[in-house]
Amino acid sequence: MLTDLGLEALWEYRSSYVRPDDFDSFWDSTLAEARAIDLDVEAVPVDTPLTTLDVYDVSFAGFGGDRIHAWLRTPKGQQGLPAVVQYHGYGGNRGSAVENLTWASAGFAHLQVEVREQRGGAGFMTRGIADRSTYFYRRVFTDAVRAVEAVRALGSAGVAVIGNSQGGGIALAVAGLVPDLAAVHTQAPFLCDFRRAVNVCGRPPFTELTTYVAENRRSDIFSTLSYFDGVGFAARATAPAWFSVGLMDDIVPPSTVFGAYHAYAGPKEIAVWEHSAHEAGGSDDLDIALEAFRSRLLEKP
Amino acid sequence: MLTDLGLEALWEYRSSYVRPDDFDSFWDSTLAEARAIDLDVEAVPVDTPLTTLDVYDVSFAGFGGDRIHAWLRTPKGQQGLPAVVQYHGYGGNRGSAVENLTWASAGFAHLQVEVREQRGGAGFMTRGIADRSTYFYRRVFTDAVRAVEAVRALGSAGVAVIGNSQGGGIALAVAGLVPDLAAVHTQAPFLCDFRRAVNVCGRPPFTELTTYVAENRRSDIFSTLSYFDGVGFAARATAPAWFSVGLMDDIVPPSTVFGAYHAYAGPKEIAVWEHSAHEAGGSDDLDIALEAFRSRLLEKP
Amino acid sequence: MLTDLGLEALWEYRSSYVRPDDFDSFWDSTLAEARAIDLDVEAVPVDTPLTTLDVYDVSFAGFGGDRIHAWLRTPKGQQGLPAVVQYHGYGGNRGSAVENLTWASAGFAHLQVEVREQRGGAGFMTRGIADRSTYFYRRVFTDAVRAVEAVRALGSAGVAVIGNSQGGGIALAVAGLVPDLAAVHTQAPFLCDFRRAVNVCGRPPFTELTTYVAENRRSDIFSTLSYFDGVGFAARATAPAWFSVGLMDDIVPPSTVFGAYHAYAGPKEIAVWEHSAHEAGGSDDLDIALEAFRSRLLEKP
Amino acid sequence: MLTDLGLEALWEYRSSYVRPDDFDSFWDSTLAEARAIDLDVEAVPVDTPLTTLDVYDVSFAGFGGDRIHAWLRTPKGQQGLPAVVQYHGYGGNRGSAVENLTWASAGFAHLQVEVREQRGGAGFMTRGIADRSTYFYRRVFTDAVRAVEAVRALGSAGVAVIGNSQGGGIALAVAGLVPDLAAVHTQAPFLCDFRRAVNVCGRPPFTELTTYVAENRRSDIFSTLSYFDGVGFAARATAPAWFSVGLMDDIVPPSTVFGAYHAYAGPKEIAVWEHSAHEAGGSDDLDIALEAFRSRLLEKP
Amino acid sequence: MLTDLGLEALWEYRSSYVRPDDFDSFWDSTLAEARAIDLDVEAVPVDTPLTTLDVYDVSFAGFGGDRIHAWLRTPKGQQGLPAVVQYHGYGGNRGSAVENLTWASAGFAHLQVEVREQRGGAGFMTRGIADRSTYFYRRVFTDAVRAVEAVRALGSAGVAVIGNSQGGGIALAVAGLVPDLAAVHTQAPFLCDFRRAVNVCGRPPFTELTTYVAENRRSDIFSTLSYFDGVGFAARATAPAWFSVGLMDDIVPPSTVFGAYHAYAGPKEIAVWEHSAHEAGGSDDLDIALEAFRSRLLEKP
Amino acid sequence: MLTDLGLEALWEYRSSYVRPDDFDSFWDSTLAEARAIDLDVEAVPVDTPLTTLDVYDVSFAGFGGDRIHAWLRTPKGQQGLPAVVQYHGYGGNRGSAVENLTWASAGFAHLQVEVREQRGGAGFMTRGIADRSTYFYRRVFTDAVRAVEAVRALGSAGVAVIGNSQGGGIALAVAGLVPDLAAVHTQAPFLCDFRRAVNVCGRPPFTELTTYVAENRRSDIFSTLSYFDGVGFAARATAPAWFSVGLMDDIVPPSTVFGAYHAYAGPKEIAVWEHSAHEAGGSDDLDIALEAFRSRLLEKP
Repeated sequence: MLTDLGLEALWEYRSSYVRPDDFDSFWDSTLAEARAIDLDVEAVPVDTPLTTLDVYDVSFAGFGGDRIHAWLRTPKGQQGLPAVVQYHGYGGNRGSAVENLTWASAGFAHLQVEVREQRGGAGFMTRGIADRSTYFYRRVFTDAVRAVEAVRALGSAGVAVIGNSQGGGIALAVAGLVPDLAAVHTQAPFLCDFRRAVNVCGRPPFTELTTYVAENRRSDIFSTLSYFDGVGFAARATAPAWFSVGLMDDIVPPSTVFGAYHAYAGPKEIAVWEHSAHEAGGSDDLDIALEAFRSRLLEKP
Repeated sequence: MLTDLGLEALWEYRSSYVRPDDFDSFWDSTLAEARAIDLDVEAVPVDTPLTTLDVYDVSFAGFGGDRIHAWLRTPKGQQGLPAVVQYHGYGGNRGSAVENLTWASAGFAHLQVEVREQRGGAGFMTRGIADRSTYFYRRVFTDAVRAVEAVRALGSAGVAVIGNSQGGGIALAVAGLVPDLAAVHTQAPFLCDFRRAVNVCGRPPFTELTTYVAENRRSDIFSTLSYFDGVGFAARATAPAWFSVGLMDDIVPPSTVFGAYHAYAGPKEIAVWEHSAHEAGGSDDLDIALEAFRSRLLEKP
Repeated sequence: MLTDLGLEALWEYRSSYVRPDDFDSFWDSTLAEARAIDLDVEAVPVDTPLTTLDVYDVSFAGFGGDRIHAWLRTPKGQQGLPAVVQYHGYGGNRGSAVENLTWASAGFAHLQVEVREQRGGAGFMTRGIADRSTYFYRRVFTDAVRAVEAVRALGSAGVAVIGNSQGGGIALAVAGLVPDLAAVHTQAPFLCDFRRAVNVCGRPPFTELTTYVAENRRSDIFSTLSYFDGVGFAARATAPAWFSVGLMDDIVPPSTVFGAYHAYAGPKEIAVWEHSAHEAGGSDDLDIALEAFRSRLLEKP
Repeated sequence: MLTDLGLEALWEYRSSYVRPDDFDSFWDSTLAEARAIDLDVEAVPVDTPLTTLDVYDVSFAGFGGDRIHAWLRTPKGQQGLPAVVQYHGYGGNRGSAVENLTWASAGFAHLQVEVREQRGGAGFMTRGIADRSTYFYRRVFTDAVRAVEAVRALGSAGVAVIGNSQGGGIALAVAGLVPDLAAVHTQAPFLCDFRRAVNVCGRPPFTELTTYVAENRRSDIFSTLSYFDGVGFAARATAPAWFSVGLMDDIVPPSTVFGAYHAYAGPKEIAVWEHSAHEAGGSDDLDIALEAFRSRLLEKP
Repeated sequence: MLTDLGLEALWEYRSSYVRPDDFDSFWDSTLAEARAIDLDVEAVPVDTPLTTLDVYDVSFAGFGGDRIHAWLRTPKGQQGLPAVVQYHGYGGNRGSAVENLTWASAGFAHLQVEVREQRGGAGFMTRGIADRSTYFYRRVFTDAVRAVEAVRALGSAGVAVIGNSQGGGIALAVAGLVPDLAAVHTQAPFLCDFRRAVNVCGRPPFTELTTYVAENRRSDIFSTLSYFDGVGFAARATAPAWFSVGLMDDIVPPSTVFGAYHAYAGPKEIAVWEHSAHEAGGSDDLDIALEAFRSRLLEKP
Repeated sequence: MLTDLGLEALWEYRSSYVRPDDFDSFWDSTLAEARAIDLDVEAVPVDTPLTTLDVYDVSFAGFGGDRIHAWLRTPKGQQGLPAVVQYHGYGGNRGSAVENLTWASAGFAHLQVEVREQRGGAGFMTRGIADRSTYFYRRVFTDAVRAVEAVRALGSAGVAVIGNSQGGGIALAVAGLVPDLAAVHTQAPFLCDFRRAVNVCGRPPFTELTTYVAENRRSDIFSTLSYFDGVGFAARATAPAWFSVGLMDDIVPPSTVFGAYHAYAGPKEIAVWEHSAHEAGGSDDLDIALEAFRSRLLEKP
């Protein structure tokens, strides 16, 4: 069943989110602070049974200089390829070195970034939420921007970003913070339109916010969240973007995806999967992303 | 709680279903094909402990000539009575020979038909759905029409049809396919207004469709379903019909029942049970059906 | 899945229930008190569309002289038939006059008794539980015994009792309180082996007891319940009894049924349905009951 | 997630409840009948380990003369203080003598009333509902009015009433039945706007009504309920009132609280907790009540 | 939480399954019948964006000559590699051509077979269950054996089989039916130890069996199932096998996996994941399978 | 229903927990490190409407010198009273200043401590779990010990500790770490017997551990947890302790409470509430604690 507005209403819906006046300066200073620390990229070859691909354990200095880890996969023996930087879903991790091989097998340098502190835990939505400077996603979004810088430091000129759910929200943040991306693909992006989300969504992780406010009735988390909302990042983005959304998604309400989509300032498309839940278009979205990224990154003259 | 629109909105609601141009020809040829096979009705007396009724195990050739089974119950020793043909709910069967005795005890020939292949299983909503010619309900609706022909072959002139849930949907299909029924009673009819149903219903069996489309994102099941929608059959019907609906039904959304009701082309009434779930009016609906069918079939001069 | 012990363990299981010393005197005085009030049976013919059966609205004086109601159904124009007295499930009622016709159609006088105060409500398990004299089931079991007396007053010599769930528990109580029944059929009987039941059952209505004790931690409801436990009645019974049980029953734990079965003092059989839930053998149990009751009541020389 | 209308719509919402013409006379005669029996207040000191407070086990004659019990707590050795009369939630009780000490510790005489028959049971919503004269809440609301009279008999001049959930509904009833209260605080009040409630609420206890009507389809419980609806009492009230509501309350729908709030005839405020469930403002509501009651009862010149 | 026996008890547990005397002859004749139809393997190159791998759409004649489809993936331009044949989970499909690239990237010919009729549907557990000759899995297991023959026809000498859940059950069946496999990896295998499974498992798809038996109380599905039980196939197997199991699996009860493991006649190991649900060891199992299959198929002298 | 072993088995049950050899030295050095920082107790009077009690906002230096907050409540104007230090449940906080007044009203200095970082969040069970030195509860238990030191610094000689659920687990830890407590009351203590807990408990917060291990299959969290297990602290304790447990507790399995109870080295009692869930004895436990603490702290000569 539909979990949110019907399709017609979604085309009309606009988020009530308002970007704070100092949104840009907050992020300028946050990134400047991070860049004051040397990126210090390391890429250690990993011994795998794969014969067609190389895999590296990449690490670099993220927010506060903390080491952030990622897998880099490339076609055997190739260098300087355009890159796809991927972010993962809530509570996940970068996965196994020998899985998720599509992007590298298709001729890209594929950087699969691991979100800090997040392997199998919970409660990240409210960690440090009392203040924008301590909020968990300030660190995560900064790490994500640094990941793009890391893959460039390793020789990739063109860079696209991709993610689903939390990864899609991170990709949107990066799209709003890095000016020269080649392309963006965001599948069922989480972390958008928070006020709407808590009003229509009854499942974790969005309910971590609801539970917190119910327990801290006089707090104002939305003031903090206004610096981390995908709708705000979308309005700063310029790279061409492909969104996807499932209208039966009960984890990320479709209206919050449309909130970000309508605000997105660059060229954009959205694939609407009327009967899908949080998986949205699944491998069909991957096909769309492959075609989009190849045309932008591999087939450019 | 209400599971769908409020009552006022239901009176205004109209289904967006559009009948395909070749709907009639599809069913004309389907029934013609079935009738090309001899109906071959058999009625074998069943040995029961009942002293007031006779029970027969009736069988006849349904779609593709497959044998379809039904119980026929009649008041002891009586022949040529008007008939009530009943269809059962999803995943059910014709039940015990010695239960469900009301219709025969009230002076009718009562034919309780068993839906083919369906005892206790699941997944029927999508069986053969890739093509209208292979869809499961093509066979079921044809069997149901043949059941009316079977009871006539056994000597009943006037025939009414009745069913609840899936049985109500089948009764509607028969009402649209058999031109000279005496009356129709359909309680919480399933199988109507499919596009609406999958959007508002979150429970099986309608969710079998949703799950299927989520897994087969590029399929178009609604094209197949447009030949099997109760709204389409309703618009072809002419017999007087009694509908019933529970506004707290979470299995068959009330709007889909009203979708069929509003489209119904014959004389019609609807009993609205504001606080009922899928049972709708339960035995109160039976009282309505008894009065309706008796006035149409038993008390005619 | 199994909801309780496996079958082998059920054959070995014995209830820890201990009958209080004054169990018999409690019930003797309770029934004596009830019988001090004139039974005052009334049987008012009901106008129904049924042509093969007569239906009467029977009432009589139950516990405290309160009027208890029942449907009596008989084959058209017949009198003095042996009787089947039936009790219904928790929160239910005697149903429609024109349904549940099997027993009368099979040649019995069929008395379908309505449990007092119970249409569609809840909370009966703990009503008046603070004292055995005020407990709800003291009134109900007394009414049930009086129902047997009422059907006898109306001309039935032989009487069998039947019920499922709460009705099965009432039937067991009657079997322990009325010495000369012809037969008993009890399907998934509720109200047995209370201490075991609350320990293994996590669903209403047994959980009404659990909730009550959790709120009234220093109460001793089991002292009251020891006068109303089906295991206690079973040990007083003499009529031949047919039990049935579903091993996947999550409403009445199978061990509590076996607790009563093993204690049953008369001739006994039990139909074990390994994959059934609370419906136990459903219409297959009805077939067993029909055969049993016919052999005991109709086919006696 | 929101469980009912959004905040803007709640401000616009008005209940469709219509007060019966004889609402006032029904309650006038009900209370007159109760007052015909002597109130007969008893206050027995309770031996507790508390050194700063006195606790009394108070009892008085409620509806029909039945003894109703309450705890009275007062600051050690003080008499004649203004009183706060509190009613508890559904299925609860007056609790422990040594808990819930805030009101007495803040200088009030605190009367914590126990709802009759209700410790840990269920099914009260439909008990006696077939007729307004037998309905359970006729007795409860009368008891609640008598509780105010009892605390006055014990020497309190000024009286405020308070409750949450069922207790809030009772407080509203008292506000409509007792003309000279000093203040009212009602948190997430239950028992308001019944027709709306059963349409939007899918959880107990409101669903006890739904289940009952589904089983008793031809009954008209709303006629009975119209004499017990908080919306009706609100329109008769004159004391200043503080409401509170949680917009994510899935037990008492926010619209039913607003239905009573908008109808409330005295001075009024409502605290809206956007992300709270049935706890509404929790201890923040207590702070509001403390300030309100102190200004009305303790700080009056 | 544990969903079945503790680890010690699992090491002791033995299935009560008994292989029918004509198990072997049933499968001999079934396979002989299938092999009487020409395998007719086709391998059509698929146009993908992958640069390191070739993908083919393979089809061949399965049971009854029906066309069965599979993806074949190989390292670019390589032929005659040892093969890994993979079967998928219940209700799934062979997935996208450009995902699941690990095996081919590791130097194997990887055949990902699609189970017939199964995309997104349900009810397969009982399809045709009335007779062993019509049972759905007779066709599926035959198709699976033919898949091994197909990959051999395409040039692979050594063949290993792998699958998780339903795929693991199919892999076990193939291990019992194909005498010369190089290795078997079966993760949380479904379709084993059916009698135990329905007794301890309360979730689909095993509950499709339970529901069916509850509705068809006098049927004997276990007679049919005895020809399709993984425990029976395990006892015929000779290839070295790696099992894995999660002790918190609520879809495939661990005891049923141990039932097959203990019966397995070839060399065997089992990875026990104490805190995993149905995912068992996830990518850690893949690492085990990669090492096992490489040592058996790639590193052989 | 019972959620764990029956009562007889619980009396026999012994935890398999083994205390690491360096458990004592780990905690000795942890506490020594904390004590190297000045406790720096502050007690700021809070302005409340309470007339019988004083309330102070107390803070002190906890683990790492972080400020920990607590309410101190005392009878108006009294000093140097014996103290009750209370710890709260998971995800909670110290609550309102004007609630929870029983202990102070009974003549104790009542220190209600707030667990750091925990207001309304989740995920604390696995925070920092990769190493015993970074684990969240290392900080919490140290803070809890420091709270006892703080209340002593404020003038209380005798000190008892109390808590329910997480608070009960913390109280047990303090009982094992502080040698001269007067008494301990622990209601349904959480954080005991972790290996058993994850095997039998299917609800949060224990499932936070399960989820984490499922995602981090090769981690060994139990090595870390062995330094934080209530069973280990119990074996070091000497103060008289009152436990309570509900046998229908589905949040803290009763066997884990008995695991700690049986290991407890001091004088001990346990109140077993057979039909209670996680609330155990509720206010009845409070009565027990009041009596116990009064006899130990107030009535000593």
